[in-house]
Amino acid sequence: MRRTVFDQDHELFRESVRGFVERTLLPLDETIRDERMLRREVWLEAGRQGLLGMQVPEEYGGQGAGDFRFNAVIGEELARVAAAYNSIVAIHIDVCAPYLLELATEEARERWLPRFCTGELVTAIGMTEPSGGSDLAGLRTTAVRDGDHWVINGSKTFITNGGHADLVIVAAKTTPDRGAKGITLFGVEADTPGFTRGARLDKVGQPEADTSELFFENVRVPGSRVLGEVDRGFIHMMERLPQERLSCAIANVAHARGVLEETVAYVKERQAFGRPIGRFQHNKFLVAELVTKLDVAQAFVDQCLAAHVAGELDTTDASKAKWWTSDVQNEIIDGCVQLFGGYGYMREYRVARAWMDARVTRIWAGSNEIMKEIIGRSVGL
Amino acid sequence: MRRTVFDQDHELFRESVRGFVERTLLPLDETIRDERMLRREVWLEAGRQGLLGMQVPEEYGGQGAGDFRFNAVIGEELARVAAAYNSIVAIHIDVCAPYLLELATEEARERWLPRFCTGELVTAIGMTEPSGGSDLAGLRTTAVRDGDHWVINGSKTFITNGGHADLVIVAAKTTPDRGAKGITLFGVEADTPGFTRGARLDKVGQPEADTSELFFENVRVPGSRVLGEVDRGFIHMMERLPQERLSCAIANVAHARGVLEETVAYVKERQAFGRPIGRFQHNKFLVAELVTKLDVAQAFVDQCLAAHVAGELDTTDASKAKWWTSDVQNEIIDGCVQLFGGYGYMREYRVARAWMDARVTRIWAGSNEIMKEIIGRSVGL
Amino acid sequence: MRRTVFDQDHELFRESVRGFVERTLLPLDETIRDERMLRREVWLEAGRQGLLGMQVPEEYGGQGAGDFRFNAVIGEELARVAAAYNSIVAIHIDVCAPYLLELATEEARERWLPRFCTGELVTAIGMTEPSGGSDLAGLRTTAVRDGDHWVINGSKTFITNGGHADLVIVAAKTTPDRGAKGITLFGVEADTPGFTRGARLDKVGQPEADTSELFFENVRVPGSRVLGEVDRGFIHMMERLPQERLSCAIANVAHARGVLEETVAYVKERQAFGRPIGRFQHNKFLVAELVTKLDVAQAFVDQCLAAHVAGELDTTDASKAKWWTSDVQNEIIDGCVQLFGGYGYMREYRVARAWMDARVTRIWAGSNEIMKEIIGRSVGL
Amino acid sequence: MRRTVFDQDHELFRESVRGFVERTLLPLDETIRDERMLRREVWLEAGRQGLLGMQVPEEYGGQGAGDFRFNAVIGEELARVAAAYNSIVAIHIDVCAPYLLELATEEARERWLPRFCTGELVTAIGMTEPSGGSDLAGLRTTAVRDGDHWVINGSKTFITNGGHADLVIVAAKTTPDRGAKGITLFGVEADTPGFTRGARLDKVGQPEADTSELFFENVRVPGSRVLGEVDRGFIHMMERLPQERLSCAIANVAHARGVLEETVAYVKERQAFGRPIGRFQHNKFLVAELVTKLDVAQAFVDQCLAAHVAGELDTTDASKAKWWTSDVQNEIIDGCVQLFGGYGYMREYRVARAWMDARVTRIWAGSNEIMKEIIGRSVGL
Repeated sequence: MRRTVFDQDHELFRESVRGFVERTLLPLDETIRDERMLRREVWLEAGRQGLLGMQVPEEYGGQGAGDFRFNAVIGEELARVAAAYNSIVAIHIDVCAPYLLELATEEARERWLPRFCTGELVTAIGMTEPSGGSDLAGLRTTAVRDGDHWVINGSKTFITNGGHADLVIVAAKTTPDRGAKGITLFGVEADTPGFTRGARLDKVGQPEADTSELFFENVRVPGSRVLGEVDRGFIHMMERLPQERLSCAIANVAHARGVLEETVAYVKERQAFGRPIGRFQHNKFLVAELVTKLDVAQAFVDQCLAAHVAGELDTTDASKAKWWTSDVQNEIIDGCVQLFGGYGYMREYRVARAWMDARVTRIWAGSNEIMKEIIGRSVGL
Repeated sequence: MRRTVFDQDHELFRESVRGFVERTLLPLDETIRDERMLRREVWLEAGRQGLLGMQVPEEYGGQGAGDFRFNAVIGEELARVAAAYNSIVAIHIDVCAPYLLELATEEARERWLPRFCTGELVTAIGMTEPSGGSDLAGLRTTAVRDGDHWVINGSKTFITNGGHADLVIVAAKTTPDRGAKGITLFGVEADTPGFTRGARLDKVGQPEADTSELFFENVRVPGSRVLGEVDRGFIHMMERLPQERLSCAIANVAHARGVLEETVAYVKERQAFGRPIGRFQHNKFLVAELVTKLDVAQAFVDQCLAAHVAGELDTTDASKAKWWTSDVQNEIIDGCVQLFGGYGYMREYRVARAWMDARVTRIWAGSNEIMKEIIGRSVGL
Repeated sequence: MRRTVFDQDHELFRESVRGFVERTLLPLDETIRDERMLRREVWLEAGRQGLLGMQVPEEYGGQGAGDFRFNAVIGEELARVAAAYNSIVAIHIDVCAPYLLELATEEARERWLPRFCTGELVTAIGMTEPSGGSDLAGLRTTAVRDGDHWVINGSKTFITNGGHADLVIVAAKTTPDRGAKGITLFGVEADTPGFTRGARLDKVGQPEADTSELFFENVRVPGSRVLGEVDRGFIHMMERLPQERLSCAIANVAHARGVLEETVAYVKERQAFGRPIGRFQHNKFLVAELVTKLDVAQAFVDQCLAAHVAGELDTTDASKAKWWTSDVQNEIIDGCVQLFGGYGYMREYRVARAWMDARVTRIWAGSNEIMKEIIGRSVGL
Repeated sequence: MRRTVFDQDHELFRESVRGFVERTLLPLDETIRDERMLRREVWLEAGRQGLLGMQVPEEYGGQGAGDFRFNAVIGEELARVAAAYNSIVAIHIDVCAPYLLELATEEARERWLPRFCTGELVTAIGMTEPSGGSDLAGLRTTAVRDGDHWVINGSKTFITNGGHADLVIVAAKTTPDRGAKGITLFGVEADTPGFTRGARLDKVGQPEADTSELFFENVRVPGSRVLGEVDRGFIHMMERLPQERLSCAIANVAHARGVLEETVAYVKERQAFGRPIGRFQHNKFLVAELVTKLDVAQAFVDQCLAAHVAGELDTTDASKAKWWTSDVQNEIIDGCVQLFGGYGYMREYRVARAWMDARVTRIWAGSNEIMKEIIGRSVGL
């Protein structure tokens, strides 16, 4: 079925993103996996291609597109090739950008956004802590006021882009006894004394993405680096979660679609017992089920995307999109692995890597369990 | 999330359908179940309310709405209350109407359509045979030309409205050795000699619907009662399947929604171990899952509906919608039964009846297995 | 795989149970469904055949087999034919018998057990209340001491055999402020003034079993009718739950087996698209999955049965057996319905009735959710 | 529930296997993963501990235990720690041993078995080919008679231990036009000219196991290296599949058990939102479900093991055990990953590695689809 959420401008833009993927990313594919991060030259090229500043107003060096569908196109084209390409870029343009655009002081915006758009300033966001998982109210990182500065102490983990980010948005307790109501957000530049990074984490999948621990030991930041209001960090984060979860959902579906397309091609070619393996009814039905799951999930995500563009996407629907597509993506790729047989277990096959890449999406960005908690509450339970 | 497929006209129409349901159907609810069919007075009232002729041009007594979304509204409002109310009416207005409108001779249209709209002429369609299930090519009912008449012999089973229909669309083999390419469709009036009906079938659910066996013993019909072209019946049916399957899908989702809404209300009220049972995390998550499944399925069905209105819905997508929503409906209602506990097993509770009603949707209108076969073929397998 | 839990004695006994089923039950099959209870003559014949007193010592008129495997044989042979046949009899011999044998006063044993064995005294057990579901601590039925009598007030629902039982074991609060520690069990004879029965409940399935509401209005019973110790009823029930749940599990598997065997025969015979429908790979794999599920579940149940015979079955393992086999049974029979196609939705087919019969097993005897709570606790959660 | 399949001898033996695991394997754990194979010194130590020759008669240097339960104990203790430890050893003692013991010439037995027991001669078996997957009849490797020698040409892939095996059992077509009836088995020593190995395959999981491609270019072997009869290789393999599949099943369950035990401990310790995460009802129920699945699967595997010891295990039941436990293992470990949250995605955690290790078990040793084909046939489909 024809998707109706995009118009011609988006499809033209899609061509240019695809060009970036083919000319810049894919030739470096193995290198990126080996280095476990995106080289700066790739970031800079993405900046030159105008992929990083679509939501940033022109006065700060962006394209000022003001339409999240362009981000969706970027996410789809990156995830189609490898889940982590999207993860890396989406943290920057879907997740971090709104904090900088909407909550940073004018001084900070001028300082950061132009380089944000060129790829000179890579961003990351530090919410999760070693002790805490999805429990934001239990944060242990603190920020204490000292004159017109703040002094941050604590640590963060599972931070995408953490190992090479130039700017990290950090959630810290500023009024420790107020739980979620005592959290403030800070923009911490990576060269600030006291800020260090742990080893690159050795994940099951998404090797292209640098995921790291971050440590803050008496990190002093000026008051102008507070993002939004003091003690309102939790609200600020909550307000931006729908876009983050929609971003996840878009990528989940696009990633699954890329793998499923390869798999359908494979089962038409690969022979066993005298015919293409896709012709065996069990496999044929499996493919039919996977195709259906994908298209059904796509319809919901597209509806969410249209709602988000209209300013109507709420946390509950974004949460539905996030957990559902995470599950669907894992089911689809698991089915694809099975269709590839032994080759589906070999890392040189994309399907095998995709299977490892996909697993985290049921865990991160608010685990699927947290999503269900939110949805349950939304109906009054 | 706001649904965008309907506009204000449809929502106004929805109010009037809801009025019909509340004033005419619900007061007779138990009676209809006991009698296992819709009384003619209900059909006539539906006709008076303009519910039966939405797609029929005004010249034949209809409203000539020319927009399948009005049918969708009818289906949703009926299925919301009881699956079989939709089954009964959808066979008439979603399934049979196109055959009469598009394939009947002008003479036949004038003869049938005005009474079709008033509810005086109830329709049914006879494809399935005792020996055959979903295998149309294996039909055993035959029609043999005799001068300018045709003589039909054979039997049909599982025919919704079969026991009280005034006009039955019958698929018969006219060129037996040509398989699917030798099938012709006929409009057979119920008072034609040789046409008889078997006992009302005792189904697991949907007791409101009359489902019957039909017998044809030397039933003579004039050549003007051929629908479409001789030997092209299979094509004629194939072309109309997308609308039939979309109709099923719309009802599947609406039926599940009705039951789920009742269930959410129930689990907020019903107490156990000192709190509303919906507050137990397992139940809360279950509700969250069911709500998500429903909304995701709705998005796909709405997308299909919009495509159908635009003349773009193909068999494959309609098949996806049919099997997916049948499964989802059954999963949702099964979950609801469990949430009702012992009461979910008592027929006086709607959820219990809905559970029995829903099961057939995975079997009929082309079983879900047939749908997967079609989808598998569509990707080249 | 050969089952090893039974020896030759049990298999010989199985022949005689099978004889009872074929000669006494099956000829009355439709009648029993219409009357929605087992006629007394059937109970008496079961008594004459020695099916009711296997666990009752010879001095009270039983066979004193002292080996639960004979009960298992009875359960399997009854459930194989219809789930409710087992439900009816199992309540009597698997569930109620231990209370009478182990907890009744000698006077009560002499009064009840001989007629228990002949079928003259049919038993039922009243735990569940309209307000309460699986929450025993929330019982509202009370028993107040009045001299050497007790006066019972309250109501019970979903009581198997409730409508025609001659003796009902009733759980009532005797020390209301002590929760589960204030419950006492009583044997209440049906002709006691103040004891009345509500209408036969109209269930989704298991129409052969009489399931009823019971009302107690100032029902006076002598102190000798207390079963076990005052205020220890909860413990008494807990101690007997493993056997009850094992009994459910045995029946769940046997019921599914009976239906699956019929289905395998059907899919070998029934033709579509030119071959037996079981030859289509999808159906073949489905059958393979169902057969596997059944055999795997059987192995666990047999292991539980052997443990119970050895006096080693604990509540946790019995709870695993109960919920797992309930789920498996429902999955198997649901698959069988699908394999029967439209006929699987017709009540005249056994598979259709079995599908309706099976659903309650996930709800009753402690819902599957309660089972998971118990198992979760057993591992320290 | 107490397992009853083992007696005291097996449990004593289990202690000694556990000693080997703790003293020899675990200290080298990371090294083995890095080297992607078991060092010869580990093989030799296993030989010294008597772990390799349990089924080999004493005259050839083995223990002559003649009871597969000792192998089962070895498999359980190895798989409990890492799936691949079992894979490596099971290929040698469960899969290859019977071919050598039962089919090799006396000369070959004397040549190979003593070193087989000491660990000096590591074995592998080459069935699968790059073009073929599970389709043995489609083998392309050929063996042509040349005097009293055979000349083998072809290639094999996915061969566990292939990269360092000293003896490879090879299936080759000797009468190409007879399909499965033209296959012969050969014992090929690794130093035979023309035998080469490809690169170690880079698998998703089981890094401890060396899995390689093997190439045969005019490899000449004497006629005495034929295993069994010429052209009866397919039968020889079929006869040994039950033991191979049972071996897989035993390991699948033991592997899952090891991971689940760790996970239960973790969810009791790990805190979130103010309590151990295992106390949240969703997690508690999930654990309950996983525990149940495991115990149910164990019961079936134990029943199969007892049947195998009694010489009664057939291919069908072994196939059920193989596919069912592969699925169960994957479901359990997937659930465990989710319970570990972000840490479940970090390779340093055992649960993460186990998740990657487990996936192949649904594919190899006859894919689960092949198992269902076999089971379907066994019921006459």
